[in-house]
Amino acid sequence: MTKTNSGNFFEDFRIGQEIRHATPRTATQGDMALYTALYGSRFAFNSSVEFARGCGMPGQPLDDLAAFHLVFGKTVPDVSLNAVANLGYAAGRFGVPLYAGDTVTTVSTVIGLKENSNKQTGVVYVRSIGTNQKGEMVVDYVRWVMVKKRDVAAAAPAEVVPDLPGAVAAADLVIPAGLSAAGYDDVLAGSPHRWDDYAIGEKIDHVDGMTIEEAEHMMATRLWQNTAKVHFNQHTEGQGRFGRRLIYGGHIISLARALSFNGLGNAFKIAAINGGRHVNPTFAGDTIYAWSEVLEKFDLPGRSDIGALRLRLVALKNQSAADFTLKAEDGKGFAAAVVLDFDYTVLMPKR
Amino acid sequence: MTKTNSGNFFEDFRIGQEIRHATPRTATQGDMALYTALYGSRFAFNSSVEFARGCGMPGQPLDDLAAFHLVFGKTVPDVSLNAVANLGYAAGRFGVPLYAGDTVTTVSTVIGLKENSNKQTGVVYVRSIGTNQKGEMVVDYVRWVMVKKRDVAAAAPAEVVPDLPGAVAAADLVIPAGLSAAGYDDVLAGSPHRWDDYAIGEKIDHVDGMTIEEAEHMMATRLWQNTAKVHFNQHTEGQGRFGRRLIYGGHIISLARALSFNGLGNAFKIAAINGGRHVNPTFAGDTIYAWSEVLEKFDLPGRSDIGALRLRLVALKNQSAADFTLKAEDGKGFAAAVVLDFDYTVLMPKR
Amino acid sequence: MTKTNSGNFFEDFRIGQEIRHATPRTATQGDMALYTALYGSRFAFNSSVEFARGCGMPGQPLDDLAAFHLVFGKTVPDVSLNAVANLGYAAGRFGVPLYAGDTVTTVSTVIGLKENSNKQTGVVYVRSIGTNQKGEMVVDYVRWVMVKKRDVAAAAPAEVVPDLPGAVAAADLVIPAGLSAAGYDDVLAGSPHRWDDYAIGEKIDHVDGMTIEEAEHMMATRLWQNTAKVHFNQHTEGQGRFGRRLIYGGHIISLARALSFNGLGNAFKIAAINGGRHVNPTFAGDTIYAWSEVLEKFDLPGRSDIGALRLRLVALKNQSAADFTLKAEDGKGFAAAVVLDFDYTVLMPKR
Repeated sequence: MTKTNSGNFFEDFRIGQEIRHATPRTATQGDMALYTALYGSRFAFNSSVEFARGCGMPGQPLDDLAAFHLVFGKTVPDVSLNAVANLGYAAGRFGVPLYAGDTVTTVSTVIGLKENSNKQTGVVYVRSIGTNQKGEMVVDYVRWVMVKKRDVAAAAPAEVVPDLPGAVAAADLVIPAGLSAAGYDDVLAGSPHRWDDYAIGEKIDHVDGMTIEEAEHMMATRLWQNTAKVHFNQHTEGQGRFGRRLIYGGHIISLARALSFNGLGNAFKIAAINGGRHVNPTFAGDTIYAWSEVLEKFDLPGRSDIGALRLRLVALKNQSAADFTLKAEDGKGFAAAVVLDFDYTVLMPKR
Repeated sequence: MTKTNSGNFFEDFRIGQEIRHATPRTATQGDMALYTALYGSRFAFNSSVEFARGCGMPGQPLDDLAAFHLVFGKTVPDVSLNAVANLGYAAGRFGVPLYAGDTVTTVSTVIGLKENSNKQTGVVYVRSIGTNQKGEMVVDYVRWVMVKKRDVAAAAPAEVVPDLPGAVAAADLVIPAGLSAAGYDDVLAGSPHRWDDYAIGEKIDHVDGMTIEEAEHMMATRLWQNTAKVHFNQHTEGQGRFGRRLIYGGHIISLARALSFNGLGNAFKIAAINGGRHVNPTFAGDTIYAWSEVLEKFDLPGRSDIGALRLRLVALKNQSAADFTLKAEDGKGFAAAVVLDFDYTVLMPKR
Repeated sequence: MTKTNSGNFFEDFRIGQEIRHATPRTATQGDMALYTALYGSRFAFNSSVEFARGCGMPGQPLDDLAAFHLVFGKTVPDVSLNAVANLGYAAGRFGVPLYAGDTVTTVSTVIGLKENSNKQTGVVYVRSIGTNQKGEMVVDYVRWVMVKKRDVAAAAPAEVVPDLPGAVAAADLVIPAGLSAAGYDDVLAGSPHRWDDYAIGEKIDHVDGMTIEEAEHMMATRLWQNTAKVHFNQHTEGQGRFGRRLIYGGHIISLARALSFNGLGNAFKIAAINGGRHVNPTFAGDTIYAWSEVLEKFDLPGRSDIGALRLRLVALKNQSAADFTLKAEDGKGFAAAVVLDFDYTVLMPKR
């Protein structure tokens, strides 16, 4: 019997199947520092214990996306080791903040299966939940991936496609216990613009660009214990479709989010991931730019200090975001420079 | 109204203006580990809690230059986003050591303004002070930068050039409370040479060389939350003057200081930055060497266990420091290989 | 008198000589995060405080190889700064686990000296012991290196070649106090295979490959405060034998051990390093693969929950490990792709 993990193939998944993922992971101060070093994030809420306490938190939480990556990484050996493509995210919610010392354990449930017409692959929908050592939900999201079949002749399961929300409803957002913007300091936060100052349809070019090196994306992806082979092995990828190592899509999400500080400095907390697609690959040497669009604004039940913004975050490679490029010139599909179309909801202090 | 920060231009500064910088930053054990990984520093005072306690400290402080970089980084979005050149440092003093868990907040005051004769740029002098959560000074220094004017026709303010000391006086150096070299262990520290063994005028070739990679200087510069665009964006810098990303000058200071361990292993604490100039640019692929010269030796008031050395630390690129290269062959200006001329004061145990 | 350390030459060593190495080092959470980021290790025992507590430990220890590297690095300035080659390891034992906050101090004793017939070099055998702040042994191992003579005419000491064990005996392995596999969770650990499932002679291809970048091996090697010049200075190495910086051999050990998780996921603790040789050099750009062979299985005195496996861990560069390549085609020496032949003993839960 082979001792190594060859991952699950499409026909290995069953609706309702629950997968406890390996390697529970304790978040540390080291993860915090590496998050800053790898992405350049500058949100005071995650950088300063004093600022976070001023917002009612017991300490500075790790960046929400660090929690997301830690959970995502754990699902890879079981869910997407034989994936052809990571197709999308939906229904993502952040629960209790993740602090240094907390341990995250991840469980996924298969909620959808759909064989492709070529019978070579199928789409697997999983809901993955990361919980801390107290059993509290840290992040809960759905992703779907196209996974190879081991055996093209294997019978396909009955098709189940889950009904996923276009966006997480305001009532479903989790506001961390104790969180308050009563004493929020705009100057220390780095932006004078509060929830009230943003208009639906407003677009923001985040101006700055960040070039990615092989060592950076590999260190990040290993930090999250994501084992997808395409990120790490030049010996095989050099013979592959792109001739290069592919960068983990989540690396681009974190870079774009960090770039978005310039224009969204008070978007201090991610509450939801409504959707997201990695629409073109990125490679070492690419320079990432980002722009945002305000899709929705909403009040939060019982809160006058904090509101929510639903944002589209678009990342481009090797092209300034000043033109807010999104679609291809023929209007069909995405422009070649677009690498990420991400739909998420943030919390922001109100005036 | 644009939501992004375009930084201040020369005509935006006023004498006496106080700028509270964004993103207070809690130092962590992660910063400590990254400092070691990025620069290779080996001072026992910063590496071992036991050694630091033996010197009377409550724990091992972060490297003094880590505190400097954290403060410097915070000033960039407000002071030097539109800078053409970082011209110099002076009057830098280190106060209470920075420990993991401490939070640094930075405030700058404009103390000098001088328009250049071309009216396109001007020199801005700022005094920046980083304080911990107790309001204690961690680092306090002056730097001056050449900043673009937004509008060449804008009226220049009255010229004020601050009177800066050539070096921080011995009486102005801060000796951390409790610090004692009574039980200082030379063997664990890694050098048999104490304050008494150094002579004014003595030059030391630090021998070793360290090659810099893009991923390293970018990770470091993001860790310090320094946002200067020239360090990160190959897409635009590739079209710029050098065709490359420029390395943050502070990266070279830290590398040279780490190299100086070989010859100055007992210079365990930086007390002052008297001056410093980045005299040539550095790029990824460059190998940094360093040499030092003892400029002054002085006793410290009331201390028999510790003395101070004022040192010149010179960094070279792609050239051994065995020849103590400094000036160009024609005696005018610096040799092309010189990248840093740094004047600082260290504490060292006496016999 | 020169202030810099030129290291010891062959004729500087004496049998019985004890060397207290510089720079005691406090392990931190930052080291933990960097270990994961640099090598991609996924052992739950080192990743999760909860999992480690479930095994009877007070917290999650640093990876055993992190302890090894911290100790090894400290010996370099005194033992191998003038080494031509790192020839081997033997008699390595791990003692008390290393936790964040613990400080390691390293002492070496010269236990063997043998001049080479060319009289230009000699072999130095040292036993190095890293102890924590309580004086408890963390790691204790022998290595031997070929060191240059300063003066070819210098008289050689009497030849002493230590009698080293082929492998650490089961009775000499240290089982950390409190360690228990009673509640060991295979699913969270990531492998269903326990000690009972491995057979002597069984070979495991660990499948995955990891490409190394310059920034990665240099950051790691600086983190361990290993000062060997060949790893860092492209300016001189570019003129040297390989035209490149050499990668620290320990970097390959850690990469291969991390890759071995895929097939040996329950080998949660290294108990001994029986031997090891770096048989070919590695450079940035190389992709490392690994395979293992079970050399021995043994029970541990008084333990029914845990057994030991003696393993050969072989690392290859730029060649899949599927063929279990080891020897050259002519049967003499190692194949050119083999870079590491490592013999170590792990603890694994029994059924």
